[in-house]
Amino acid sequence: MLAPEEKLKFSTKPYLAATPQFKSGSSSPREFLERCLVDLTALEPKIGAFVHLNIEAARNATDASSARWRAGCPLSPIDGMPIGIKDIIETADFPTENGSPIYFGWRSERDGASVAALREAGAVILGKTVTTEFAATEPRGTRNPHDLRRTPGGSSSGSAAGVAAGMISAGLGTQVIGSTVRPASYCGCIGLKVSVGALNRGGSFDGLSQSVTGVLAATLEDAWQVASEIASRAGGDPGYPGLFGPTSAPPPRMPSRVAFLETAGWAAASPSTKAVMNDALARLRGAKVEVVTRQLHAKVAGVEAVIKEAPALSMRINAWEWRWPLNYRNRDASKLSRTLLDRLAEAEAMSLDDYRRDIAQRDKNRALYAELAGECEACISLSAPSAAPMGLESTGDPSCTAHASYLGIPAVSLPVLSDEGLPLGLQVAGFVNGDANAVASAAAIAGLF
Amino acid sequence: MLAPEEKLKFSTKPYLAATPQFKSGSSSPREFLERCLVDLTALEPKIGAFVHLNIEAARNATDASSARWRAGCPLSPIDGMPIGIKDIIETADFPTENGSPIYFGWRSERDGASVAALREAGAVILGKTVTTEFAATEPRGTRNPHDLRRTPGGSSSGSAAGVAAGMISAGLGTQVIGSTVRPASYCGCIGLKVSVGALNRGGSFDGLSQSVTGVLAATLEDAWQVASEIASRAGGDPGYPGLFGPTSAPPPRMPSRVAFLETAGWAAASPSTKAVMNDALARLRGAKVEVVTRQLHAKVAGVEAVIKEAPALSMRINAWEWRWPLNYRNRDASKLSRTLLDRLAEAEAMSLDDYRRDIAQRDKNRALYAELAGECEACISLSAPSAAPMGLESTGDPSCTAHASYLGIPAVSLPVLSDEGLPLGLQVAGFVNGDANAVASAAAIAGLF
Repeated sequence: MLAPEEKLKFSTKPYLAATPQFKSGSSSPREFLERCLVDLTALEPKIGAFVHLNIEAARNATDASSARWRAGCPLSPIDGMPIGIKDIIETADFPTENGSPIYFGWRSERDGASVAALREAGAVILGKTVTTEFAATEPRGTRNPHDLRRTPGGSSSGSAAGVAAGMISAGLGTQVIGSTVRPASYCGCIGLKVSVGALNRGGSFDGLSQSVTGVLAATLEDAWQVASEIASRAGGDPGYPGLFGPTSAPPPRMPSRVAFLETAGWAAASPSTKAVMNDALARLRGAKVEVVTRQLHAKVAGVEAVIKEAPALSMRINAWEWRWPLNYRNRDASKLSRTLLDRLAEAEAMSLDDYRRDIAQRDKNRALYAELAGECEACISLSAPSAAPMGLESTGDPSCTAHASYLGIPAVSLPVLSDEGLPLGLQVAGFVNGDANAVASAAAIAGLF
Repeated sequence: MLAPEEKLKFSTKPYLAATPQFKSGSSSPREFLERCLVDLTALEPKIGAFVHLNIEAARNATDASSARWRAGCPLSPIDGMPIGIKDIIETADFPTENGSPIYFGWRSERDGASVAALREAGAVILGKTVTTEFAATEPRGTRNPHDLRRTPGGSSSGSAAGVAAGMISAGLGTQVIGSTVRPASYCGCIGLKVSVGALNRGGSFDGLSQSVTGVLAATLEDAWQVASEIASRAGGDPGYPGLFGPTSAPPPRMPSRVAFLETAGWAAASPSTKAVMNDALARLRGAKVEVVTRQLHAKVAGVEAVIKEAPALSMRINAWEWRWPLNYRNRDASKLSRTLLDRLAEAEAMSLDDYRRDIAQRDKNRALYAELAGECEACISLSAPSAAPMGLESTGDPSCTAHASYLGIPAVSLPVLSDEGLPLGLQVAGFVNGDANAVASAAAIAGLF
């Protein structure tokens, strides 16, 4: 156990902002990587963001990238970007262990769709980042760079902590309830959770119906670029139109009207956190953004009523969808956590009819939310009901984020708030397939802080 | 090469029909399996339906099943059923080779969702059946039991040939264009292609948006039971409501009105095949079933116009969706067939916008087809434009079946027609999630032959 008072020094490593130097020749992706590796060497033993690393392969890949930049022909704007892949997504050059001893050392021997696309774009896969068990609840020991006694959040624990600590510029995560936005909030980096189906999940074990592949990154521009490079090469999930939007980050555009959503998390928020959120709303109003709330707007009140139930409804849907693969025969139950075994028991007590009712209800609630698009350009909320809680035995409360997954909408966590001296995210959510609009709003709002 | 005139003796092995003997104790699943194994021993060396077999494990599993039947507590009506799994679906106890040298010997070490469900229902996995390369075009040598010089069809080649030859009662297949209905037609067994999303494809490599897991079986009752046992345990694809219908085969119900669809395959049908189809229509009319056709009904004509394009439109959609996984970096191009390399080149020439247009068009065409539900209870067509063609270098023409995949509708191939002394399927298609109605219609129609 580390001394409670230990304070680490670190900063994020924005990539796109560095690339003019690669063009001019005054720096290179290799030099960029070496700066990441300095921090990785110092911090990784304390933080534990990675389950597998391949530093020599990364050096070789950035050397190739450096040559492309020097020759004026990078494969994409993120050519050479050091990136981490949540260990729920397959990679040809690393095992994919899913945060579970069942998958210890297991190799699919292929790249997932998002990873293949990133490699085509020249991104450099530095390693596999820690996920909770099967991207669900059980933590796997990663610590929060801001306070090593605290959780980094989950389930994309390692990608968020690695990005925040500057070991990588970006990391892939996934989110089925809160697994991208929550760790972004706790670690103080950007979390981009895209519309349902917007990024191809081929080769990801996070295959639940409201799950998506998300991006943790140093900046909103980096996050969008990573998502966009994936979408243009691998598209969305089969049958989905894929991420819509420009090929580089949409320019900031201040919304004229936003809805403030308390979400299920407001009840759990401390007075100080609520005060931080109210200050943020005052800042928005000060910038002439109209803020509509449940107290005064019937449609917002209707959505609030529905999303209060989002955590519980999401858990039920997820439980059924987890029946398989958790039930497969060669599973050694002693290798599953108590939490997952309980979830499996819940799943086995459900019938297909129960599930049908739940997803029909979700469709209805998605339609209800979609009507808000006529009332506002984005929805604002806390990314979490508090800063990262103490302890590593839980990844914290996802009640501020479940609605975005349940509704299938894009959501961005901006690292612009703080509470108790720790990072706290401001969540900007949009409408299905309006990811670019949500990001444009988020970029403008970030400028107010 | 076998002598061209060799005629094999074989018959299918319906399972549900045999289970009263298991209840009474006059026979057992183990005895049933042994009858299958007699035929397997004699025929498999000539037909080549399997890539992997585990006969001892199957014997042990049927012994356990026999005990359950004797004790009056089978796990399901298909407890003990010998079944083959298309080698595109993962199994814990066999490699999953996807019909590709890239996957030679590769093991996922888990059961796919459908396989896990079948095991829970007591079904006995005898082996992995031959698939074309990645369930696409390139055949892998399986021969048609009715004439060893002919293709069994594909891509579910081994499941269809194994079922037809009586080595197994049922086999899992998949279908993205014609891969269940076509081999059923050529081999003379039941092919059940379910509504899009109706059976959970977790752990299947056939993950394209219009692909489904299908069932090849000796009888319609067996086929429905297999599908139903999967659905009740593993549901449909995540986010889909799963197969609707009764827990055992819906009783036959003669439709009062059917549409005859020529489909894209009519143009390729020989005069003799067309005559066979016209006789079938006469038989329906003789049973007081009204047959509506494109010549006299505008809505049927509208659908015919659209589905003429289904093979080409499906190929384009599939191409994009195959970009990944065909493009992953560790792929050794020398291990992919020329056909798949060409398909990858096609995919790489496409943009996400092209794909978006294609799937938007598909949605429109699905809505157009759905309007037919007001005009008829089922749609009738040939399952293939001819009996199984000579040669093993192609799995035949899928132009009679592509519309069912493109439209996402349920379709059954009934082995009730013949041409040139070889089996030919009659295809009965329904409407999305109306699988039970389609099967009820098919059962009644089968009774006319």
